[in-house]
Amino acid sequence: MKFNNVNVRISAKAKIGKNVRIGDNTVIYDNVEIEDNVTICNDCIIGEPLNDYYVDALYDNPVTKIMKNSFIRSHCLFYAGSVFGENFSSGHRVTIRENSKFGNNCRVGTLSDIQGFVQFGNYCWLHSNVHIGQGSTIGNFVFIYPYVVLTNDPTPPSDICNGPTVGDYSQIAVFSVLLPGVKIGEHCLVGAGSIVGKDVGDYQLVLGSPAKFIKDVREIKSRKTDEPHYPWPQRFERGMPWANIGYEKWLEDSNKK
Amino acid sequence: MKFNNVNVRISAKAKIGKNVRIGDNTVIYDNVEIEDNVTICNDCIIGEPLNDYYVDALYDNPVTKIMKNSFIRSHCLFYAGSVFGENFSSGHRVTIRENSKFGNNCRVGTLSDIQGFVQFGNYCWLHSNVHIGQGSTIGNFVFIYPYVVLTNDPTPPSDICNGPTVGDYSQIAVFSVLLPGVKIGEHCLVGAGSIVGKDVGDYQLVLGSPAKFIKDVREIKSRKTDEPHYPWPQRFERGMPWANIGYEKWLEDSNKK
Amino acid sequence: MKFNNVNVRISAKAKIGKNVRIGDNTVIYDNVEIEDNVTICNDCIIGEPLNDYYVDALYDNPVTKIMKNSFIRSHCLFYAGSVFGENFSSGHRVTIRENSKFGNNCRVGTLSDIQGFVQFGNYCWLHSNVHIGQGSTIGNFVFIYPYVVLTNDPTPPSDICNGPTVGDYSQIAVFSVLLPGVKIGEHCLVGAGSIVGKDVGDYQLVLGSPAKFIKDVREIKSRKTDEPHYPWPQRFERGMPWANIGYEKWLEDSNKK
Repeated sequence: MKFNNVNVRISAKAKIGKNVRIGDNTVIYDNVEIEDNVTICNDCIIGEPLNDYYVDALYDNPVTKIMKNSFIRSHCLFYAGSVFGENFSSGHRVTIRENSKFGNNCRVGTLSDIQGFVQFGNYCWLHSNVHIGQGSTIGNFVFIYPYVVLTNDPTPPSDICNGPTVGDYSQIAVFSVLLPGVKIGEHCLVGAGSIVGKDVGDYQLVLGSPAKFIKDVREIKSRKTDEPHYPWPQRFERGMPWANIGYEKWLEDSNKK
Repeated sequence: MKFNNVNVRISAKAKIGKNVRIGDNTVIYDNVEIEDNVTICNDCIIGEPLNDYYVDALYDNPVTKIMKNSFIRSHCLFYAGSVFGENFSSGHRVTIRENSKFGNNCRVGTLSDIQGFVQFGNYCWLHSNVHIGQGSTIGNFVFIYPYVVLTNDPTPPSDICNGPTVGDYSQIAVFSVLLPGVKIGEHCLVGAGSIVGKDVGDYQLVLGSPAKFIKDVREIKSRKTDEPHYPWPQRFERGMPWANIGYEKWLEDSNKK
Repeated sequence: MKFNNVNVRISAKAKIGKNVRIGDNTVIYDNVEIEDNVTICNDCIIGEPLNDYYVDALYDNPVTKIMKNSFIRSHCLFYAGSVFGENFSSGHRVTIRENSKFGNNCRVGTLSDIQGFVQFGNYCWLHSNVHIGQGSTIGNFVFIYPYVVLTNDPTPPSDICNGPTVGDYSQIAVFSVLLPGVKIGEHCLVGAGSIVGKDVGDYQLVLGSPAKFIKDVREIKSRKTDEPHYPWPQRFERGMPWANIGYEKWLEDSNKK
């Protein structure tokens, strides 16, 4: 009994692709472009007008693009002026502000709060309640766990906006804070509850407040196999492009292209 | 002016008891069973179909049970396939995924995020913004405070799902993390901001990151009376089954049954 | 295409000023008083009845006041019995319980959770996901950042409700906890991830768990100018009443009144 077209409002200026399903009580504002095979569930607001809307009579809503095969769960609110790559999926009650650019195959979990003016690569998976401050840059295959905050103002309040950068394949565990301007390398693991104020080199496990280098992640063993778990792409393939063929083979094939 | 039956949609396959009130803009999906004297406020989604719904033409929504006298506040989203015991109550914007089993008299606070495949005893009170990972097991009379996270993956990302266990009467204070597989005993107090990586025995106060044993909770005094406050059931009775008769008498009566 | 008057319900007992815009799917309950030039966006609930509503046939909703020029973004839920001063603005999905009093020019960010029975001065700016426990008192020009919690029960669970107090111009950074009854002075900076259990004097930077005195905030330099950044009113004026005239001049003018 979903997708009954009850209390749905779609702007005449929106472009809707083929096989798009839109849930009840959902609003699609001006200049939203939805590609084929996208599902948007109930109670969503897509293309929310920016603040100028309320004060500028000539306001024109910037383009919002939701690329093919994306899946947006209920109660999401996406501002106008963002781009969601192919196969994007969201949990519930996600808030995403303007000028957020997502590559393909990204996931953003329930209650996450993306403050806008941020950039994500491909295959970024954000769990529930992730808070990404403006000016952040996230690489590919980055996993961010609940209640992680990326900050951008070193001396609050100020007019400085200096977001952190996270390298490919890195993992940021629950309740960690990346302080303004910090650069996390590739294949890093930031342990739970860390406050990271200094740059972190590739393959480092850091932990604590302030976060300190603990060991090379390649020394961490899986509790299941007692073998090294990192670099994780060699041990984890669910939902990844190397599923069934293995990371090494995929990497080899990718490099050939 | 509540319960006007405006924009309410109830599946023909739902079972609704006597004296059930359903708020405006609320949806009740297939195979939801609501017992007598339940109130569901505005803008809720009850029995949200699982992911298979979107891909399986033969999908049949699992049964969702909301037992008598429950009270669900606005904007809650409960997936199909969960059981809410008698007198369940929720705050606002609570998200509860499938296969969550609640005993009687549980409360789940505003914005809490229950990831599914979890089990709660009776009289569990979760405050706002509690995040319970899959595979967690919570006893009876457990209180969990805001921004507590129960995790389940020791080497993220992996396919391991090893949730924590919390014993009866334990208290988990704000911003604490229970790491995967940890067992918290009975009558424990986990102090604010703790990261608990090792099992905690009965009656322990633990604190810090990593959490360390501080003292026996029975040594903690109330600031009001300067007398020992724990075991707390002897000092706190609001909403508890021993209200007016005292914990000792209630326990004695319970044991006789 | 906003403010179409679709699925809007306004109590006959509400008072609505001039030039008030109300978003689709929004409900305004009894005895809400909205002054001139207020905007309330989509999917809001204003004047949510208190718990007595459900059990007391003679229940009369307490007055809720939203003063002029306020701006309330989508999905907000404000209980009856609160006062929102002039130019109040909120993010999305904000929950504010009864008996919350806000001065003028306050801002409350997305997903914040104000538990009621709290008092704010003028120009308090709460970022996303701030949790304010009952009995808290906040001064003027206080900035609170994401995932800060103000607690009130020193020995949970108990019937003690002893909220913290925050002095004028103080800043509380992400993931900090103010423990019950703590008093933060004026012009303080509580660093990220701090757990504050003792009173903090004016102009102190405190940090850590438990939070310790680090230095006088007047010794902290801006990364941009390498000059002292605090007291911040001398360095930051966006949105402040001293914009364009400077803090010293404004203070002088204010003192003359």
